[in-house]
Amino acid sequence: MKQLRVGLIGYGFMGRTHSNAFRKVNNFFDLDYQPVLKAICARDASKAKAFAAQWGYESVETDWKKLIERDDIDLIDIAAPNNAHAEIAIAAAKAGKMILCEKPLAMNGPQAETMVAAVKKAKVPNMVWYNYRRVPAVTLAKQLIDEGRLGKIFHYRAKFLQDWTINADLPQGGAGLWRLDAKVAGSGVTGDLLAHCIDTAMWLNGNIDTVTAMTETFIKERKHTETGKMTKVTIDDASAFLARFSNGSLATFESTRYARGHKALYTFEINGENGSLAWDLHDLHRLQVFDYKDESKIRGWKSVHVTDGDHPYMKNWWVPGLQIGYEHTFVHQVADFIQGLQSGKMAGPTFKEGLATDYVTDAVLKSAKTKRWEKVKKVR
Amino acid sequence: MKQLRVGLIGYGFMGRTHSNAFRKVNNFFDLDYQPVLKAICARDASKAKAFAAQWGYESVETDWKKLIERDDIDLIDIAAPNNAHAEIAIAAAKAGKMILCEKPLAMNGPQAETMVAAVKKAKVPNMVWYNYRRVPAVTLAKQLIDEGRLGKIFHYRAKFLQDWTINADLPQGGAGLWRLDAKVAGSGVTGDLLAHCIDTAMWLNGNIDTVTAMTETFIKERKHTETGKMTKVTIDDASAFLARFSNGSLATFESTRYARGHKALYTFEINGENGSLAWDLHDLHRLQVFDYKDESKIRGWKSVHVTDGDHPYMKNWWVPGLQIGYEHTFVHQVADFIQGLQSGKMAGPTFKEGLATDYVTDAVLKSAKTKRWEKVKKVR
Amino acid sequence: MKQLRVGLIGYGFMGRTHSNAFRKVNNFFDLDYQPVLKAICARDASKAKAFAAQWGYESVETDWKKLIERDDIDLIDIAAPNNAHAEIAIAAAKAGKMILCEKPLAMNGPQAETMVAAVKKAKVPNMVWYNYRRVPAVTLAKQLIDEGRLGKIFHYRAKFLQDWTINADLPQGGAGLWRLDAKVAGSGVTGDLLAHCIDTAMWLNGNIDTVTAMTETFIKERKHTETGKMTKVTIDDASAFLARFSNGSLATFESTRYARGHKALYTFEINGENGSLAWDLHDLHRLQVFDYKDESKIRGWKSVHVTDGDHPYMKNWWVPGLQIGYEHTFVHQVADFIQGLQSGKMAGPTFKEGLATDYVTDAVLKSAKTKRWEKVKKVR
Amino acid sequence: MKQLRVGLIGYGFMGRTHSNAFRKVNNFFDLDYQPVLKAICARDASKAKAFAAQWGYESVETDWKKLIERDDIDLIDIAAPNNAHAEIAIAAAKAGKMILCEKPLAMNGPQAETMVAAVKKAKVPNMVWYNYRRVPAVTLAKQLIDEGRLGKIFHYRAKFLQDWTINADLPQGGAGLWRLDAKVAGSGVTGDLLAHCIDTAMWLNGNIDTVTAMTETFIKERKHTETGKMTKVTIDDASAFLARFSNGSLATFESTRYARGHKALYTFEINGENGSLAWDLHDLHRLQVFDYKDESKIRGWKSVHVTDGDHPYMKNWWVPGLQIGYEHTFVHQVADFIQGLQSGKMAGPTFKEGLATDYVTDAVLKSAKTKRWEKVKKVR
Repeated sequence: MKQLRVGLIGYGFMGRTHSNAFRKVNNFFDLDYQPVLKAICARDASKAKAFAAQWGYESVETDWKKLIERDDIDLIDIAAPNNAHAEIAIAAAKAGKMILCEKPLAMNGPQAETMVAAVKKAKVPNMVWYNYRRVPAVTLAKQLIDEGRLGKIFHYRAKFLQDWTINADLPQGGAGLWRLDAKVAGSGVTGDLLAHCIDTAMWLNGNIDTVTAMTETFIKERKHTETGKMTKVTIDDASAFLARFSNGSLATFESTRYARGHKALYTFEINGENGSLAWDLHDLHRLQVFDYKDESKIRGWKSVHVTDGDHPYMKNWWVPGLQIGYEHTFVHQVADFIQGLQSGKMAGPTFKEGLATDYVTDAVLKSAKTKRWEKVKKVR
Repeated sequence: MKQLRVGLIGYGFMGRTHSNAFRKVNNFFDLDYQPVLKAICARDASKAKAFAAQWGYESVETDWKKLIERDDIDLIDIAAPNNAHAEIAIAAAKAGKMILCEKPLAMNGPQAETMVAAVKKAKVPNMVWYNYRRVPAVTLAKQLIDEGRLGKIFHYRAKFLQDWTINADLPQGGAGLWRLDAKVAGSGVTGDLLAHCIDTAMWLNGNIDTVTAMTETFIKERKHTETGKMTKVTIDDASAFLARFSNGSLATFESTRYARGHKALYTFEINGENGSLAWDLHDLHRLQVFDYKDESKIRGWKSVHVTDGDHPYMKNWWVPGLQIGYEHTFVHQVADFIQGLQSGKMAGPTFKEGLATDYVTDAVLKSAKTKRWEKVKKVR
Repeated sequence: MKQLRVGLIGYGFMGRTHSNAFRKVNNFFDLDYQPVLKAICARDASKAKAFAAQWGYESVETDWKKLIERDDIDLIDIAAPNNAHAEIAIAAAKAGKMILCEKPLAMNGPQAETMVAAVKKAKVPNMVWYNYRRVPAVTLAKQLIDEGRLGKIFHYRAKFLQDWTINADLPQGGAGLWRLDAKVAGSGVTGDLLAHCIDTAMWLNGNIDTVTAMTETFIKERKHTETGKMTKVTIDDASAFLARFSNGSLATFESTRYARGHKALYTFEINGENGSLAWDLHDLHRLQVFDYKDESKIRGWKSVHVTDGDHPYMKNWWVPGLQIGYEHTFVHQVADFIQGLQSGKMAGPTFKEGLATDYVTDAVLKSAKTKRWEKVKKVR
Repeated sequence: MKQLRVGLIGYGFMGRTHSNAFRKVNNFFDLDYQPVLKAICARDASKAKAFAAQWGYESVETDWKKLIERDDIDLIDIAAPNNAHAEIAIAAAKAGKMILCEKPLAMNGPQAETMVAAVKKAKVPNMVWYNYRRVPAVTLAKQLIDEGRLGKIFHYRAKFLQDWTINADLPQGGAGLWRLDAKVAGSGVTGDLLAHCIDTAMWLNGNIDTVTAMTETFIKERKHTETGKMTKVTIDDASAFLARFSNGSLATFESTRYARGHKALYTFEINGENGSLAWDLHDLHRLQVFDYKDESKIRGWKSVHVTDGDHPYMKNWWVPGLQIGYEHTFVHQVADFIQGLQSGKMAGPTFKEGLATDYVTDAVLKSAKTKRWEKVKKVR
């Protein structure tokens, strides 16, 4: 068994999901590599130490540049806020490290281009943590579409609805609240939530050509945790757009943190000539399948409980009927990343695919300002 | 167009559902007969008159015996309380009238036998208002089973859950409350709710051989509307039984008026070697279908929205996707009754089938007392 | 009981729903007026006669102008194709008739303006058959919103998805197929399906200010039933738009006849600060309610089975748990129209409200061409 | 951090779920003890070694008696087939080991009594792996019931439906198929599936007093994997019973492996005067809650997505809306076991509670033979 020595940057929510994935993957997947948790890096030494103890990291760093210099590390996992991705990734690439980077890849497309160039030049394996591709039900959707079962596609629709920022007393600033600050996050729900929808959408349905969008900031000012003062909110609270895909299908996309009653309602639906598929993160283990070839009088939406041995990833887990959860998508991603190392055929989403999503979010944000349809830049 | 001249006895909830059915049937079904609302009969003349005005009955009677004597009436529709069914039906049969009788057919099996004998002797068309057979989704279930799609049957389960008698302040006695008095109703939920479950079950899955049951009266005394005094409650509030069908399948049945949160949750499910079906009155326009022959990885329960032109009865109504409701089951029953008259092949459930259900409820009530498995008497 | 003498123009699908409503309303609602089916008018005399026989119309006309001239008619009900609405309605208004008109009110806003002017000048009661307002669950949504329960509204989303025109062999032309011809229908799904969504949306959430839209015609040519030749399809097969309401909320709207698996999936959802509501025509008797004031740990979407006596319209029907269907919305509309006559306070949607919806569809169709945000004209 | 040195017996499905739990618990729960995987014991040395490598066990044993003798082991975890539980557990107790034992506790009540006596005498911490108590939604149900929110309980119903043995070609015998052999398993679905239902039911609703049951073996003979011969099937394929709880509520229970379409449909529902709760393993992260105190017109079943920080166990996992799965129930059980060690107040289900469930399954199996109501023996 070869070692895959990991250095993680960031100990937040994503630091936990990644660490769990590294620790679990070999219990459930037969692989040639075993991730080894070499170091966790964060500015706050005491928090980093606590995290290391909780998750079994062998060492702690407080300067990510030092982490990248270390010879005993093969892979840099970037779970730091969005505005730190590019600098770290480019340095890591120069140091010849493999890179896993949280989504969105960068603050915007041009910045993401520099990251893509860096990993291309350094020829280092790279991946973006768009984890929802690896929900078994979503992967099954991909299989069914790739098998041509839906026929010509007419419609795609996706939304990602949350409600956690409705309270006007919620401050912006440090900790988990950097997501409310455009300087750190790049954008609001567009980069945070819509980016997930877009990554999945393009994976399933190909390129998006043009978009027309609107965004809104419902609560204009919030107290800042550092200054204690009411400060302008710089992110988009809600973002929606119409789109046309290269394959001729039409789409609607929407995301918000003001949809009361929805914690994390990421849904998509795709309608083709011969069938349709629908999925909902709130019941992530199910895929809704409509097959027009079914006999007419018993035709209906099938609720497929994606927990059988012939479903993607599922033979590695428990027995039919017993569901897995959110965290497993990260385990799958690590497993696929390692299998990519083994086969030499890298699993996606690569940085290049991450860039493609950034181009769409750029177009969305631009259209929201110009109030026109905008073309989406294509990745060469 | 021939006339089918109707004399209705009873103006309660069922009097309304039947009247609506008689009035609507010719607008939606092409039939040789047209029901004509000749007379409504009830003891309370003023209420009967009001009902006649509301529904367009041509005349009013206060004595059902007079109604039966009338020459201008072809069909007696019995919507009176259960304890009145037998006497009226037997007299009507003697008078040569066709008879539609509310369910349950009688107070018990032996009484029902006399009714069956009477209609047999008189050779008059007869039917019992077990309306749920004619929910299109239920009729579709019947078709699928009769086509042999489920293969060998292993399990049947049904329940009918309500919650309207939980309040201890609810009195017993007159009006709609006669259902709480065993002298009038025969039994409680066993004859009222379980009887529906049993009729459907035997229609779909054949005869029930043996049962073991339990019943309970949760609230032992209630104020009587006539005397104003606290009086022993004589009916069963809840009733459940295990059963074995003649085809070797096992069953569970349950009904109650103490299942908080359920207004009229009548559900059944049938499991066969090759497939399963499930239905729920609360969404009566859907049938859940599991077809084991579907391809493994997209196998799942199909939610069939039974509103297409190739679904039972539905070509007579609106367009696909637009649901019908509870009242339509009665319209279908009248349509089928008339088509039976036309073809000479009477539609069920006939009195004989109503008797079969009474035999099961008799066995259930007996078993609840003997605490043993009881055999169900078979209709010869 | 006063008579309300009805003359119906058109015997299609809508002719049936209206006729059924006129016939049923007095059985279930206590009203001062009773609709009397005086005449059905259609060019095809034999079909009109058959329809009259089926529904009990006393007479038949083949020229709507003659119908309007008749003294024995109080109310003209327009169920003819869209391009006939204006001329008939204006003539009927001049003749002093009350008017019920199928939706959409007209081919476009300017034409609708002439109709509004006509009924205003003639001071005749008028209404548009946007029937979905009167699904009890939808009416309940209206009550809850009007009671201020949702607080500030952030989002509205609606869609109406069908799949009946996917087959390229489906022709355009006569009978039910006039909906595929823009000269007769005005537009495709925009006027047919989106118009329903828009009427409900403005009723529930106020005016729409601006929109950006896209439309598509997936199948460019279809055989015409009259000529037998392949002819350009002139309608929009799919139509979607983003919108901003006057109250500051954002919206997405979509309709199509190419969403495989959906027969008539009209859904809406509204998200407010304190709660959210969602509804789906495929299970029209349920309203999904999220109430943020519920205790945190048992907070969730409530599936309200809108069949209780304290739900809108439901005390007039059956008993709790027993659902009504599509046709009942038309009965409710007639009942409310008559109550409007009685009270002098006309029930909506009036022609003026129908005009408001036409203004929105005009803006949608315009935006789809200009590819810009378009302002919606306001009804004065 | 104290070590909790684990010796596991058995490497099957349950061996995996337990191992995963031991490995994960400290990453998510702050505890004073850390499970250390000291040894895996199984007769087949090579399989045991492979399992040890997969899961990180430090050593391998092939004789459980040797395992029990080892000084470096604190806790024996029994994941061997049912007929081995008693002997191992009694020996482990004598050796002063803590014991976690797979369910059902024993082959029958009398055997389970000897195990209870052994742990009582040895005063060793003990627990049975009825893991479903620790699905957060189920634990939430327990909280709500214990807070008295449901009021007087009228009904309880549970079922556990599977379909994996319908195929007559499925053999009986070794590996996972020992569940089809009564000598090894004790019984069929009664001990395997109903036992889960019973454990949860008594935890939520108190003691079961009396039962009447039926069982069935649909496929009478199956090929045996060891002999290759058709051999009588000795287990029950299906088992159902009616019950009365000590609190006066009525119950129905059912389990089967012949319910086509259900992989692992464990559901329960409880109806009380003031509310009801329902749960389904196929969507284990949701609890259905009906609260009669909700305002009448917006009363309905709430679908509570049990993923918030104030839901049981959930603050230890991810963020609201992101579901956990089956495996996490075992992590919770280990966490609670350790917290029991810390507090001195042992978490359930203890062996004593496991015995109580065995008493019920004994009564069920007996009643299926005697065809009478049987009293359930009470644990003293």
